[in-house]
Formats: sequence, C-alpha cells, structure tokens
Amino acid sequence: MTSPLPGQAPDGQAARPLGVAMIGYAFMGKAHSAAWRTVGSHFDVPRIARRVVVGRDAARTAEAAERYGWEGSATDWREAIHRDDVDIVDICTPGYLHADIAIEALKAGKHVLVEKPLSNTIAEGTEMVAAAVDARRHGIQSMVGFNYRRVPALAHARDLIAAGRLGAIRQLRVAYLQDWLTDADAPMTWRLRKETAGSGALGDIASHALDQVQFLTGEAVTEVSGRLRTFVEERPGPDGREPVTVDDAAWITAELSGGAIATVEVSRVATGVKNGLRIEVFGDHGALRFDLENLNELWFMEATGPATEQGFRRILVSEPEHPYLAAWWPQGHIIGWEHTFTHQLRDFLTSIRTGDAPRPSFEDGLQIQRVLAAVEESAAAKSAVVQIGSADHAQP
Amino acid sequence: MTSPLPGQAPDGQAARPLGVAMIGYAFMGKAHSAAWRTVGSHFDVPRIARRVVVGRDAARTAEAAERYGWEGSATDWREAIHRDDVDIVDICTPGYLHADIAIEALKAGKHVLVEKPLSNTIAEGTEMVAAAVDARRHGIQSMVGFNYRRVPALAHARDLIAAGRLGAIRQLRVAYLQDWLTDADAPMTWRLRKETAGSGALGDIASHALDQVQFLTGEAVTEVSGRLRTFVEERPGPDGREPVTVDDAAWITAELSGGAIATVEVSRVATGVKNGLRIEVFGDHGALRFDLENLNELWFMEATGPATEQGFRRILVSEPEHPYLAAWWPQGHIIGWEHTFTHQLRDFLTSIRTGDAPRPSFEDGLQIQRVLAAVEESAAAKSAVVQIGSADHAQP
Amino acid sequence: MTSPLPGQAPDGQAARPLGVAMIGYAFMGKAHSAAWRTVGSHFDVPRIARRVVVGRDAARTAEAAERYGWEGSATDWREAIHRDDVDIVDICTPGYLHADIAIEALKAGKHVLVEKPLSNTIAEGTEMVAAAVDARRHGIQSMVGFNYRRVPALAHARDLIAAGRLGAIRQLRVAYLQDWLTDADAPMTWRLRKETAGSGALGDIASHALDQVQFLTGEAVTEVSGRLRTFVEERPGPDGREPVTVDDAAWITAELSGGAIATVEVSRVATGVKNGLRIEVFGDHGALRFDLENLNELWFMEATGPATEQGFRRILVSEPEHPYLAAWWPQGHIIGWEHTFTHQLRDFLTSIRTGDAPRPSFEDGLQIQRVLAAVEESAAAKSAVVQIGSADHAQP
Amino acid sequence: MTSPLPGQAPDGQAARPLGVAMIGYAFMGKAHSAAWRTVGSHFDVPRIARRVVVGRDAARTAEAAERYGWEGSATDWREAIHRDDVDIVDICTPGYLHADIAIEALKAGKHVLVEKPLSNTIAEGTEMVAAAVDARRHGIQSMVGFNYRRVPALAHARDLIAAGRLGAIRQLRVAYLQDWLTDADAPMTWRLRKETAGSGALGDIASHALDQVQFLTGEAVTEVSGRLRTFVEERPGPDGREPVTVDDAAWITAELSGGAIATVEVSRVATGVKNGLRIEVFGDHGALRFDLENLNELWFMEATGPATEQGFRRILVSEPEHPYLAAWWPQGHIIGWEHTFTHQLRDFLTSIRTGDAPRPSFEDGLQIQRVLAAVEESAAAKSAVVQIGSADHAQP
Repeated sequence: MTSPLPGQAPDGQAARPLGVAMIGYAFMGKAHSAAWRTVGSHFDVPRIARRVVVGRDAARTAEAAERYGWEGSATDWREAIHRDDVDIVDICTPGYLHADIAIEALKAGKHVLVEKPLSNTIAEGTEMVAAAVDARRHGIQSMVGFNYRRVPALAHARDLIAAGRLGAIRQLRVAYLQDWLTDADAPMTWRLRKETAGSGALGDIASHALDQVQFLTGEAVTEVSGRLRTFVEERPGPDGREPVTVDDAAWITAELSGGAIATVEVSRVATGVKNGLRIEVFGDHGALRFDLENLNELWFMEATGPATEQGFRRILVSEPEHPYLAAWWPQGHIIGWEHTFTHQLRDFLTSIRTGDAPRPSFEDGLQIQRVLAAVEESAAAKSAVVQIGSADHAQP
Repeated sequence: MTSPLPGQAPDGQAARPLGVAMIGYAFMGKAHSAAWRTVGSHFDVPRIARRVVVGRDAARTAEAAERYGWEGSATDWREAIHRDDVDIVDICTPGYLHADIAIEALKAGKHVLVEKPLSNTIAEGTEMVAAAVDARRHGIQSMVGFNYRRVPALAHARDLIAAGRLGAIRQLRVAYLQDWLTDADAPMTWRLRKETAGSGALGDIASHALDQVQFLTGEAVTEVSGRLRTFVEERPGPDGREPVTVDDAAWITAELSGGAIATVEVSRVATGVKNGLRIEVFGDHGALRFDLENLNELWFMEATGPATEQGFRRILVSEPEHPYLAAWWPQGHIIGWEHTFTHQLRDFLTSIRTGDAPRPSFEDGLQIQRVLAAVEESAAAKSAVVQIGSADHAQP
Repeated sequence: MTSPLPGQAPDGQAARPLGVAMIGYAFMGKAHSAAWRTVGSHFDVPRIARRVVVGRDAARTAEAAERYGWEGSATDWREAIHRDDVDIVDICTPGYLHADIAIEALKAGKHVLVEKPLSNTIAEGTEMVAAAVDARRHGIQSMVGFNYRRVPALAHARDLIAAGRLGAIRQLRVAYLQDWLTDADAPMTWRLRKETAGSGALGDIASHALDQVQFLTGEAVTEVSGRLRTFVEERPGPDGREPVTVDDAAWITAELSGGAIATVEVSRVATGVKNGLRIEVFGDHGALRFDLENLNELWFMEATGPATEQGFRRILVSEPEHPYLAAWWPQGHIIGWEHTFTHQLRDFLTSIRTGDAPRPSFEDGLQIQRVLAAVEESAAAKSAVVQIGSADHAQP
Repeated sequence: MTSPLPGQAPDGQAARPLGVAMIGYAFMGKAHSAAWRTVGSHFDVPRIARRVVVGRDAARTAEAAERYGWEGSATDWREAIHRDDVDIVDICTPGYLHADIAIEALKAGKHVLVEKPLSNTIAEGTEMVAAAVDARRHGIQSMVGFNYRRVPALAHARDLIAAGRLGAIRQLRVAYLQDWLTDADAPMTWRLRKETAGSGALGDIASHALDQVQFLTGEAVTEVSGRLRTFVEERPGPDGREPVTVDDAAWITAELSGGAIATVEVSRVATGVKNGLRIEVFGDHGALRFDLENLNELWFMEATGPATEQGFRRILVSEPEHPYLAAWWPQGHIIGWEHTFTHQLRDFLTSIRTGDAPRPSFEDGLQIQRVLAAVEESAAAKSAVVQIGSADHAQP
C-alpha cells in the first residue's frame, strides 16, 4: 500500500497541512503571500502551512516573513525546498533562477508553482518541462503563473467561447498597455538590460497577452510577424546614461491553429494607461470585450435576435454562478486584482488534491516562450512571418 | 363635396405644397428651419413650401430667411398666418406669445406646431386647448414640440416598455442637467426674470423630463412633491446687479397613475454637464438607460436568462428597423440632435396627410403645465405633496 | 505612572498584541475577518490577535472561526468581551443587539467597532453615544462602520472638495441601487420585517448614502423631505404569504448646512443594478462622479482652462500617492470592495495607537439615525419638510 | 484684366452662385446632397446652386434629383460637366470612374471634389494628380473626400497634437471595425470582386484609417508590414456560390517619418461593431482617444500635474470654440455623421473663395494609394516590410 501524497488524505484521517516554501518576496512574493493567507478562508482546499520565505538578505527576508505571515525565513533555497515539512515550492524569483529551483524542487518530489515567464531561455524551459513531465508521473504537480487565466471574467469568457456562443473565432485584438516607462528620465534598472531581463515588454506583458489568446480560444499560435521598438534608448544609471537593451513596445500579428488572426500590441510607454490588458474576440455570431483595469466586467454581444436589440452588454461578473465568485461577496461587490492569485492557488491546491495535472503547465509556458522567440526572430527579419516550432512534449 | 384639406390630395391629383409660416427665427427657429429644409429629402411626407419667416426686426428677419432658405420674411405675424398660401404655422417665439398666435392660426384653419412649453400660464393653455379641440373637429391639426419624443432611442424605449419587455414599471430616474448658468457672473437675461420666462429650469427643461416620464410609460403624473432653488440670486444687468427671479434647479418626486415613482432633477448649474437628459427606467423584469449627450445609444437590460449573462447592453440605435432610422445612413453612422426636429415634422406632416391627430397634443402640453404648477405649489408648501388636477379636456 | 493602553507600547517595549473579539460571523463577519487577517500585512498598525468569534450556534461558530482564522469561538458575548486578552470588540450582529453589546464593551474598557447602522432606535443610539463619550475620556475608542469612507476614490474626493477644487458645493446626486429584491417571489426574511430590521433600503443603504453626503462635503443635513415605497407588499414566508413591513425604496431631498441640496434615491428593486452607490457632486467650479461598481475610479471635472479642453476625467485611483494605495499594488492593479474594511481597521487601529478619536464616531452614527427618522416622519406627512434636531452630544 | 473665378466676386458685386454637378446619387450622393443643401445655412461660404445630378438610369436619377433637391438630372456626365452654369464637379461614383471624370472636369476648368479612394490604380491616380497640379496653376481647386478630417473632434485632436500637447508621438493604434459582412450568407456584390472594387476593407476603410494617421500626426507612413484575410471565401451570387476576391480584414504595422509606430486593423466582419473608427495616440507626455460611433467626444490625457489627478477626460466637442461648432447648436447638442460632409464642403468652398489649395489634395490621395499598394505587396511577401516610394509630385 502506498502512502498518500501530501494533500491527499486517506479516508477518515485528517491530512497534515501542505507546507509551503516561497522563494522571493518582492512584488510577486507580496501578491502570492496575500493569496496563501487568504485561499483557505474562501475556498475548500487542502490545509496549508506557510512554512518559510527564502531570500538573499537575511534581515529583510525575516521582516517579509513577519509582515506577510510566514512561520519563518531562510536564505538558502536548496535547504528550504528539501525540508520535510515543505510540500510545495512557490517560485517568485527573477526568471533566470526559475530553472534551477524548479528542477531541484521537482526532483525532490515537491509540487512547484513558478511565476511567468517560465524561463529566460528555450533551453532552460525545455529542461524544466522534462523535469515536470517526469515528476507528473509520480503525482507531483507543476504550474506556471499566468494568473490572468483566473480572472473570473476571463474564465467566464473562455466558457462562453468553448460553448460556441461566439461561433467560429475570426479575430482577436489584444493590447497590454502600461505607462510606467513613459518618462525618458526614469532610471535604468535590471529590467531594462537584456542580460538580466531577457526582453522588455515582450516577455513581461506580451507573454500574458499571448497566453490569453491561446487560453480563450483553445487554439495555438502557429506563426507570427513581429516588430519591437525601444523608444527611450538611454536612461540614467548610477554611472551616467546607459543603453536600454530591451524593447519598450512590441507588435505581433499571429495566426492561430483554428484559422483566426490575433494582434497583440504591448507597451510600457502608453501614456495614461496604467494596466490595460484589453481583449476583444470576434466570432462569426458573437463577440467579447475585456479590460483588466475593470476586471470585474465582461462585455458580451450575441448576434442573435432582432437587430434592434443587439449590443454589447456589460456583465458584472459577480454572481455566485460565475467562476470563483461563490467564495466571495454578494453581487456587485467587486474583487481586486490580487485574487487572480488566490484563485490560482485554489486551482493549484485542488489539482494536488485530485491528482489531475493543472494548467497552464510547464509545456504551456514553454510554448509561450517559443512564440516570443519567434516574434524576436521575425522582428530581426523585417517582420517576415516565422512559424512556431512544435513543442517537444505533448500536453497530457 | 368637400374640398380636400391641404396635404390631402384627391385621387389622381398632385397636392399643391403645404405652405409654412415660421414665427420666430432664434435658436428654435434655426433648428426648425433645418428640419423643414431636410424632412422631404429623407421622409415620404407631403411636399411643403417654406413661405415666410416672421420676426420683429425686418432686416434681421430678412437675413434669417435668406440664410435658412425661406422664400420671404415679414414682421406682422397676423398677416402671415392669414396668407392663402400658408397652411401651417410653426411657432418658435417666447412662450408668452404662444397663445395669441396659436389661437388665431387655428381659427384661421391653419395647422399649428408650437414649441414647448405650451404656454406660460394655465389659463392661456386652457384657451389654446379649447381652440385646438375645436379646430381638430375640422381636420386642423395641432401639436406641441416636445421633440425628444422623436429621439429614435427614446421612441424605441417606449416601444420596448409598451411591449412589456421591462414588466411593470416601478421607478424612473430622470435628470436634465446643463451648466450654462454655472458662472455667477453670467449676465442677466429675460430668461432669468419670472415675468418674461415664467420659470427657470423648471419650465425650460423639467418640462421635457416630465414629458418623457409620461411618454415612456404611457402613465400620467398624479401627484408631486417639489423643491426649487436659485443658487445665484443676483446677476449683472445693464444697470448693475439684478435679482434672479426664477429657479436654477428643481427637484421633483412624482407618483404615476400606474403606481411607479419618478424622480426628476433639473439644473442649469450642473458644472461639467452640457446637455444631460438622463433617463433610467426600472421595471420588475427589465430596465433601460439613456443620455441625450449620446442620443444614438439605448442601454437595455432584461432580467431573463442565466444570471451569468445578464447586463445592460448598449444598443446603437442606427439600424434601419429602428424608429426613423431607415431614412438615414447605414448602421453605426450616427445622427445629430437636430433630427429630433426633422422627425417631429415627419410625424406632424404625416398626421396632416392622414387626418389622425398627432401627439403630443395641446392637451398633453397643458397637462405638463399643470404638473409644473403643482411643483411650484408644493415647493411653496415645504415640499408637501400636491395632487394634479384632472384635465378639462380628455385626450382623443 | 499609568500603564499604557493596549496598542500603545511604552518606549523600548514590544506591545502585546491587541486581542479582538468579533460578535457575529455572517456577511459582515466574513468581510471583517478578511480585513483583520489582512491589515497587518499591508499597513503599519499595532499587532492584533484574532482571539474569538462569538455566535449563537456553537458548532457553526466554531466552523467559522476555523475557516476565517480565529483562535477560538464562543457563544456568550458577555463572557467574550470581558476576557482579559480581548481589547477590541467588533460588533457584526443585527442592529437590535448593537446597543447592549457596545455599551457593555465600552464600560469594560474595550475599544468598540460597530457595524452601521449604529442602532435601530434613536433612544438606543443616544445611550450608545453617552457610553462612547464617557469611554473616550479614558482613551477607549469607538467607531461606526461606514466603510465607504475608506474607499480610496471617495477619500480622494473628500480631499479635493476640502481643498476647494470644486468651489462652493451646490448639488449632490446620490443613488444607492441594488436589485436583489426585484423578484416578487423572493422569500420573506427578517430584513423585511419592521420589528427586526427597523427599516428597509432606508436604514440599510440610504444610511451609507447620507453618510457620504456629509463626509464628502463636511456639512450636515439640516432638513429633509422623504418618500418611502414598498413595491412588493407580500412575500412568501414559511406559513404562506406575509406582509412586507419595510420599504423597498426611498427618496430623499435634503438641505445641507452649507446651503447645498442633495438628493438620495435608494432601492433594492432597481433591476440590473447590483451595487450601484453612485455619487455626483457639483460645485461652482468643479464636479465629481463615482460609482461603487467601479470603485477604483473617480471622475473629476474642473471648470478651469479653455472650454475646449474641459471634461470629466477618469482618475484610476491606484497611485501610491492616493489614500491607502501605497500599501497595495502598482498603478492600475485594482483593489476590491473588501479592502474598505481593511482600510477601516487601519484607521481604527491607528486611532487606538495615537489616542485620537476616530471618525465616524457614534455621534456621527446617531446623527445619521436622526436623519433617517426625519425621512420617515416626512414620508408619513406627505413629504413635507422635517428639520433635523441638533445632536445631544457635540462631536469632539 | 482677368475676370474673377466663380466664387470669387470682385468688390461691390454679387457673385453668381457656383453651379454644382454631382455625379452619382447612391450612398455617397445622398450624403453629399445633404451637405450641399445645408452648408450655406450654417457657414459663410460662396452661394451655390445645385444644378444637376448625373446617373445612368434616367428615371431613377430624376427621382433622386427631386428627392434631394437638385434643379435637374442627366445621364451624360461629360455633357453635365461642360455646362456653362456648372463650376464644381462632385464625383460620387465607384472608384473606377474617378479618373476619367476628374481629369475631364479639371481640364474643363471645373473645381473637383472626388470621393475616396482617389482611384483604383496608382497609374490612374498619377494621371489625376498631374491634372490637378496643372489645374491648380489656373486657380482650379481639387480635393479628395477623406471626410473624417472634418470630424470636429479629430480636427481638435490634430490641433492639440500640432500644439505639442502630447509631446513626441510614439504610438498610434487605429482600428476601423464594421460588421456588415459578418454573415457568411450575405450575398455577393461588386464590392467583393477585385476587378470592380480593387480591394476590400483595405481600400474602403483602411484608407480612412491611414489618412487619419497622417492627418493627426502630420507625418507620412514610410514603411509597412501587412496581412490580409478573406474569412468568407465564397458567397451566394445570382448563379450560385462565387469566390470572394477581396479581403474581409487587413492588419498593418506602419512606421512614420517622425519615428512613431502605427497599427491599423480593419475589418468588415467584426461582429457587433457597427462603424468603429477608433483611434488612440500616445505621445511622451499626453494621449488621445476617439471612436467614430461617439464622434462628438474626444478623450484627452495630459501627463502633467499631480499623478493623483491625471486621467483621460471626455471632452464633449460641442463648444463654439471647437472646430466647425460655432455654426451649430448650443453646447452638448450633438451633431451627426453627415456633417463631416457639410464641413468638407465648407472647407472646399472656402478654398475656392480664397484660392488656397485645399487638403487632402489629390497628392494626399495618391500617397494613401501607395501605402495601400505597399500593404498588398507586403501581405504577398509573408508580411515582410515594404518601403513606401516617394510621391512624384511634391505637395504645395
């Protein structure tokens, strides 16, 4: 008889809580902490214990642990993930560390949640997928953090599309616009150097946009034409002006496996737009619209019934029947951006309980990396179309 | 054998055009002129001839006639309405002249269109109704210019309500907000003196709002509670500061004959709102919203189907199946405010052709005056509810 | 030497955490629990310990305590508030229990946060104020939970108004519209009986609306005209149809101490509107708009500069310089309704630390009750204006 | 001494009216007729006389002339343009007839207004430009009908950009979305055959979008990457299903002479969008937004002042100080789509009076044709970037 995996209690026996180690405590660590603190009060998930936060600076990591409600802190991520009371490793570090930590954790039999993008290189991503596939055979789950799949309005959008309510999808228009780099005097950071960040708006926010394109339609991007632009070519660094070596904005025209065409435009210099992930989907008998700045709303149009009564309707996605919403507040009482992470944990923990592999998988994450690489290749070749290579590992 | 009325040609014989005399050429005269110039090119109506514009100042009236495309001009309205080649009298003067002109015209057997409000006093309005009732027996038509009944979106709204799509109406929220008197140094005008204007925002724009309440629901206001306020109590006149003797804003709570409650709030000092006639109607299984600043849109909500898919939908009222729209442009090509007058003429001319009395009738106009008077009475009595007296003349 | 109050640590000594007892665990208890769980991770406040939840049903209370992260549960509220390790009593019960619990807690030297409305009767509210005033002299704080004062957009709105950016305030238009009672077959509950609920939409949501009117302007309501309506007069109860004895909707026209006029319309049968607390404020050189369904947005209009460039601007209230926002996420990453409670606790706990009495005080809560009572009085007197009696206790 | 050109009266002498011949009376002829009928009543322009409408079918042309208020009708366009009492030729025919008529009219010394696109081929367009340049030397004016330059909000947008209010322009996002071909069973027409229509959405609506890109920024498109798609490849014709040989949708990424990047997406199958010409412009310290379905609104954002007060503001472009608006109605009384043509005539007639060549010139029209041709070339070459050849004729 095999002993149950953590989170899967045998009949009649209380499971011990799933211990969590979180690596990294900056922006994403803060958001993930809020989700770990909250998920069990609103969703029926396996109990968890917030064991340890890992960071490089001992004092600041300890302070983060205290502030965000973790039992302890540590500076050695390897040690932390090998702890017996740790069952889940939540990776919130910069991308260049993802592969090492995730692979080590999976090999140690720990469930892994890793922030997007999966990795900075295709090579690393490919290794990560191999480790995930191997671990999955032993019931060890892995997932990449495209949290916007857990926006209730977008989950609802996907359901409507999957149910055929839009008909055959023809066009998607996706933009992810921010403006925090608008000012040419905003200082140089590691995010603006290719060697540390990999890319600019492309990896940071086009990755989200492309994941949505595929998530909403259930289709894969098969070819892309791309263009990249760095509008502010130098920024003030500690030792004077430095070249910016990543893109400020990217433009993508993509064909999907089902024949639809999607455009993706992303920018971090779109003056006046703060966090505008905007999505439009047009099918042959319906359409949808969404904007992350009003993430509780979904606009839905059905080209049925009398023409005199057709129009985009604003659905306030806050009914108990809407995805994830039964856990929250009465209708009309909106939820915030942070709960995309709470919902992500709800699904991740549920997959640990049930043994069903969660999505987006590492394969999904790698496929997005392949699309991003193809965009860069196209941009370097005067925007000529580039095909997306098929993935090495089929998705289960 | 009786000879046909103007506009009603005997079989096989071309009707001579209906001659029009327009009294007044200021703001309303300009708008009416545009409508008279346009209606025949877009609607199937009796031919008209723009005979004469009447005004006090001969030179300026002649210039207006030239500019707006009338055959001639005159300074004596009596003479003009008695011309043999004049069949329709269109009254665009200030309210205190309405009664004299309308009654004389009706007695002369001329169809009459009079701008709202019907009259400055109930007494005058009552006489006008008597004249209209009498003339109607002889096939002479009369109408009061509540032009917003001819906004296609509002005509469509009425149709939806009449068809029961909202269920039983419970609440209406109507506001008509403008801001052209916001500045306390805006000069004194005749519109701000009770003796010339009758009232302020109440007669000017609450009249429109109340007409919509009754038009949309098909119910009559039966009682009101009201409040009036003059925020700017003095304004600069030619001889120094003068007291403002009409209201800047008015608040009304009204009960309708069918049991619904309507609120009406009007203001000419609502900073930042230019021409905001905003209407919300709530029934027990549907709702509507409208704003005159976006007059091509109607927002419609049906509380049917799954809760997850309900929401207010933006209907762009520009389909050929929408009221009045077949005459205009392809879908999505919006029309302007001025065509509320074009549509009004279309309906007025059609009623002349068919012999069916048009609405809003003088009786309708008088009933609005009664409601306005009741609001003033309530406002003078600490907002205590006042009943609306029943009209002397039943509506045919 | 006096020993420090809980939450106020002497120099060089770690304060023991402030123990919290929460009475009630339904809708409000759930929301308050989320706030107690969160506040310390995002704001610099005294440490707290979630000691105990109190409810009538032992098993269900224990389950709520477990789910929402409280140390324990109890069924006797008196016992709980007298515990030595309890410093704060958070009252989330129905209104008829507020007075007994709050007064007992204050007398026991415990800080008290009580949900709105303060009480079901003026008499009870008056006693509560007396207890609060007395306790305040001993550094014991009390506060009533008008949480919408802590919507960042509304706090920002108040700041703009207080800074004179709108000029003299002339008109406020406030509506609080919901639709959860639209269906005439929705069942009878205690909320629809006068003896348990006190009133309907009036006490439940007009209280919020009126608090905002006063909060935003810094002015007091001095007189009101009111109207109440129960659209669905009977609803199915366990033993057949029962009369509904509270209002479904209420309409209020109020004059403020500074001369402005405010209208308040509330409804729980406004089909299609889920949680629409909508506010418009018009001053003589600026205006504001807000809707709780998009609570991260504030619309601001300044009537300055060229007319060609004026207009309402959508401020996405998510900058670190906006009230409360530095604690949360980067710009454009919106927060949810629940954090109005988190912010409320931040302010309440800060007031405990500093010793400055928090607002809204019990006096503020009682003043709202007086306004509500005046509305009922006016409604019973054909909407005739009723003056608001001055409060017995001046606000510190 | 030379005699004055028509429209330019010598001092002290009334000019005879400018006679107009309009060729074509379908959709565009209807819209142009409304503008010819209206322009003189609202703008100070040379007097015109609507002499003749020309069409192929004598009876239907006569009926159109009657309906739209022209003096007469004819079937021979050559004869009409050579009439002595015709000074202006307004070409509203399908594109393949533009060159012949325009060149003949210009050679005959008649001012020419031609609908967009200028021509179906670059070769024809080049000849038309040559004729226009030649005629211009003799004071004969010519213009192409990109009427959206005369939307007041867009003229205002251009002014703001030209005044530097947005700073350096970095990104434009333009979409022109319609849905009238959504239904795969909509019938075959000449517009869907390459031989008659030239192209599909590309020539029809991307031409407008590209003209706006250049008009708003004052910059020229220098290179493009393009993609075309026909979603519905066959449609029912009179003799069974026929192949559709033009595009349903087009995607363009363009670089401008000043370094900005513009994306243009056009579609006639964008379900639920009726006439959505949507424009966003991002500069380094400001931004603008526009949608043709709400053509009286311009959204403007300045990244100046405190971050807490920044946001896109809705300017209702209806003030007398706004372009073209002094001619119309009081603030907030919106105008319709048709008046883009009225304003076009106002500017065209003014240029005839003053002798200053109007824009957009035939050169402007030809340059748009070159961009469209480059898009087709890129689309045929896997979206690889294509440079735009410089125009043969410099713009005066």
